[in-house]
This record gives sequence, structure tokens and C-alpha cells, in this order.
Amino acid sequence: MYSTFETEITIRPDDIDLNNHVHNTKYLDYVQAARYEQMIKEYKMSMEDFHSLGYNWVASTAHIEFKRALTLGDKIVVKTQLKSYSGAQVVVDFWIVKTDSQKVAAEGYLVYTMISLSSGKPVRLPEEIIKKYTV
Amino acid sequence: MYSTFETEITIRPDDIDLNNHVHNTKYLDYVQAARYEQMIKEYKMSMEDFHSLGYNWVASTAHIEFKRALTLGDKIVVKTQLKSYSGAQVVVDFWIVKTDSQKVAAEGYLVYTMISLSSGKPVRLPEEIIKKYTV
Amino acid sequence: MYSTFETEITIRPDDIDLNNHVHNTKYLDYVQAARYEQMIKEYKMSMEDFHSLGYNWVASTAHIEFKRALTLGDKIVVKTQLKSYSGAQVVVDFWIVKTDSQKVAAEGYLVYTMISLSSGKPVRLPEEIIKKYTV
Amino acid sequence: MYSTFETEITIRPDDIDLNNHVHNTKYLDYVQAARYEQMIKEYKMSMEDFHSLGYNWVASTAHIEFKRALTLGDKIVVKTQLKSYSGAQVVVDFWIVKTDSQKVAAEGYLVYTMISLSSGKPVRLPEEIIKKYTV
Repeated sequence: MYSTFETEITIRPDDIDLNNHVHNTKYLDYVQAARYEQMIKEYKMSMEDFHSLGYNWVASTAHIEFKRALTLGDKIVVKTQLKSYSGAQVVVDFWIVKTDSQKVAAEGYLVYTMISLSSGKPVRLPEEIIKKYTV
Repeated sequence: MYSTFETEITIRPDDIDLNNHVHNTKYLDYVQAARYEQMIKEYKMSMEDFHSLGYNWVASTAHIEFKRALTLGDKIVVKTQLKSYSGAQVVVDFWIVKTDSQKVAAEGYLVYTMISLSSGKPVRLPEEIIKKYTV
Repeated sequence: MYSTFETEITIRPDDIDLNNHVHNTKYLDYVQAARYEQMIKEYKMSMEDFHSLGYNWVASTAHIEFKRALTLGDKIVVKTQLKSYSGAQVVVDFWIVKTDSQKVAAEGYLVYTMISLSSGKPVRLPEEIIKKYTV
Repeated sequence: MYSTFETEITIRPDDIDLNNHVHNTKYLDYVQAARYEQMIKEYKMSMEDFHSLGYNWVASTAHIEFKRALTLGDKIVVKTQLKSYSGAQVVVDFWIVKTDSQKVAAEGYLVYTMISLSSGKPVRLPEEIIKKYTV
């Protein structure tokens, strides 16, 4: 089991939709924003660092189950955890949790593929990166 | 097997992200925009019609597999097909297809739950709605 | 001269556009997010409080001058200041400032109109609200 | 007086905000989407064509007056008209018009600056481009 990382996200008015709740696709944007920050703070290897090495991360699969609506006043935290890695891919589980009630608003997973910036093709994860990620 | 419906979507500049491609969560917005239009044109029962009956549809699960990047100039069509229904839910399969090459840019499914506008609770699909949807 | 309020905004990956900068319309979303928070923290009268009184605020005019591009790593603060009020409207000046360099990334103003939630028509600002806002 | 160009825009569910109307900053995205299409269809010089020449267009000022709310079912057309040009800049007036009533939902202008892709600095508009734009 790998570490679980947490990132607070501030819900913005422009995230709210016609049902007066956070728009459903924004949940995935929150997770990706959290992940972006965790690359810097937790893995000490930012997206820009990957770019400098000629790599990029792209989402290959997104799966999300919506459990509870989020509203503009809600405080939330995004938790993520590396589940597994293989070839050019990592599977990252996530949970969006309401801070006050500790109830899960949504959960799911993202499969990210590391690609070469120049060719756009998947690149097998180097040992060095696996080491950094499997903490 | 139920009918497959098709809706053309116009990619907008504000859909493009830092990788110069359509942002990954926008794919799901395209599917939902297509579905919204198909409710009117294909099922002859718009979201507003559901609201008038005291119902609303919310996404319970979204699953998407990204196959090909989309760029600003791409012409795309969203295809959807009811896969199954049960209780208060429908499962809708979708494909985002590049018009020129007929290649699939993404595919997946959405589980939608019909809820009561007043209580927010799931409502078992009435026969009348099942009949309209199972075409 | 009325008080200047400051709110930190976190730039998210989904705010970045095809030029690899914060998308230009997101600047206005940042200002409105800041303003929303300032209603709670500074005026002690949240948007929800206005709603309870049967009022709503809508933007009537937005004017923004873009001075510097913002990128994903930038730290920013939104400063706003009530400039004037009249009838049903307030004019709010704003500046988006890069925290590190203290350089202005954008500046402009928003004209907000207070409307009745039921009729949608403008409502002359009551003395009580003017008093709260002219601090 | 230069030509007025028209582009139909389809309002998407993800454009709708907490007031059940098109979110105010989306209006500017519609104008920019229209302008992007008009570059191809009307000026026969797409954004990509500008990029190939080493140029890019960025918004320097946006001014918009909101006249009427737009809802999900509304049909709209964006009209734009070059107002003037000078140095590296063009001023483009715009109107968002509801197709059914022909009423203006919003109007304003955008100042666009042509910059060098490599230096990021403004580039005086070449005669050739002025000629294409002043139709």
C-alpha cells in the first residue's frame, strides 16, 4: 500500500452548474489539480520536471462514482493513492471528501500514461520514476 | 439493442488545454451536451419536460477511456446508446468519433439516476419513461 | 475611498488554455470567486444572505485589461475595491497581482446590479446594504 | 465601416451556472469561438496560419455589457465587426443576439494584439494582414 496524499481544493463559483451543485466534470478537474500539486509537494517531481526530461502524463481512463452533491460553501479535500503501476501506466485511486462531515462526495480512479513529448508514444516508466512514486 | 443517436459537437477554443488538446473533462461535457440534445430530438422529452414532472437526471457514474487526442480543428460526433435500465437508473454507452477518420477518440458509459426534484431521492423509472427510452 | 480587499486564488490546471497560459475569461472568474469570498469575510453578508432577503447580484458590465500572462505555477492575489454605488448598482475595481513580483497581471472593473430574485428586476440598494458595503 | 460577420453558437449544459443562465464569462468565450471560426471562413486566414507565420493573437482588453440572460434552450448568433486597427492591435465590436427575438443579449468589444510567437512582443500589423482584415 502506497501513501495517501491530501490536497485542499477551493470550490469556485464558476464550478457550479445548472443544478446549483459543483458540475460533475469539475470533480475530475479537482482530482487532477490535486494530483498536479502532489507531484510538486509529495513526489518532488513536478509536471515541468517531467517535461524537462521529455515526458508528459496524459489521462487514459477516468472512472468516477458520484456519491454526494457538492455546493459552493463546501470545504473539500482530495485524497489520492497510487494503486499500481505497469509498463507506461499508473493507476491512481481518489476520493473527494467533505471536510466537515468526512463523507465521501465522489470516488474513483484515473489511469495515467507517461508519453514521450516528442513522439506522443507511451514510455515504459524508468526505475527512477517508479522509485519516486512508490512511496 | 436500442437505437444509437448521433450529435455533432463543435469544439470551442475554450475547450483546449495546456497540452493543446481538448481538455479531458470536456469530453464528458460533450457527451452530456449530446445527450441533452438527444432528449429533445430523439426521445421527445427534454430535461425541462422531466423538471415539469418533478424529476431530474443526475450522473451517478462516469467512465471514459481516452483513445485519441482531439484538437481545435477536429470535427466530431457523439454517439450514444442506451445499454440497460434498472430501478431509477439508465446506463448509456457513448463514443466520441472523429468525423473525418471515423476513429474513436474516446468511449465509455454514464450511469444516470432519475431523482425527485423535491426530495433529491432516486425515483423508480415509470413505465411511460422506460417506453420512451427503450427505442 | 473604500477598503481594498485581497483574496488568494489557486490557479488550476483546467484554467490553462491553448497558449499555455491562464485562459483570458478565467481572469474574470478569479475576480468573481474573490468577490464571492469577500462578501462572506469582509462584508459579513454572503451571497446566500442576499438570496434569503430575496436579492441576487448579477454582473452588468465587465471590463478587463490584460497586462501579463499567468502560468500554472504563478501565485496570485485578487484585490478589489468598491469604487462607487448608485441606484441598484455598484462599481468594483479589481487588480490581479502576481504575488512574487507584485506586478499587475490584469486590472479592470465590474458593474454589479442587485436584482429581485422573484421579478429579476433591479432593486435600489437599501441603506443597510450601502452601509455594509461602504467600508 | 467593415463587414459584419455572423456565427451561430450552440449553448452547452456545461456553460450554465448557479443562476441557471449562461455563465457570464462564457459570453466572452462564445465571442472568441465565433472569431476563431470567422478567421477561417471570412478572412481565410486561420489562427494556425498566423502561427505558421510566427504570429499569435492575444486579447489585450475585453469589455462586455450584459443585457439579457441566456438560457440553455436559447439559439444565439455572435456578430462581430472590425472597428479599427492601429500598430499591433485591432478593435473588434461584438453583439450576441438571440435568434428568435433578435434582441441583443450582450455587446462589447475586444482589443486583440498580434504578438511574435518567439518573443511574445507586439508586432506591427503587416500591410498584407491589414488588407485581409479590412473587408
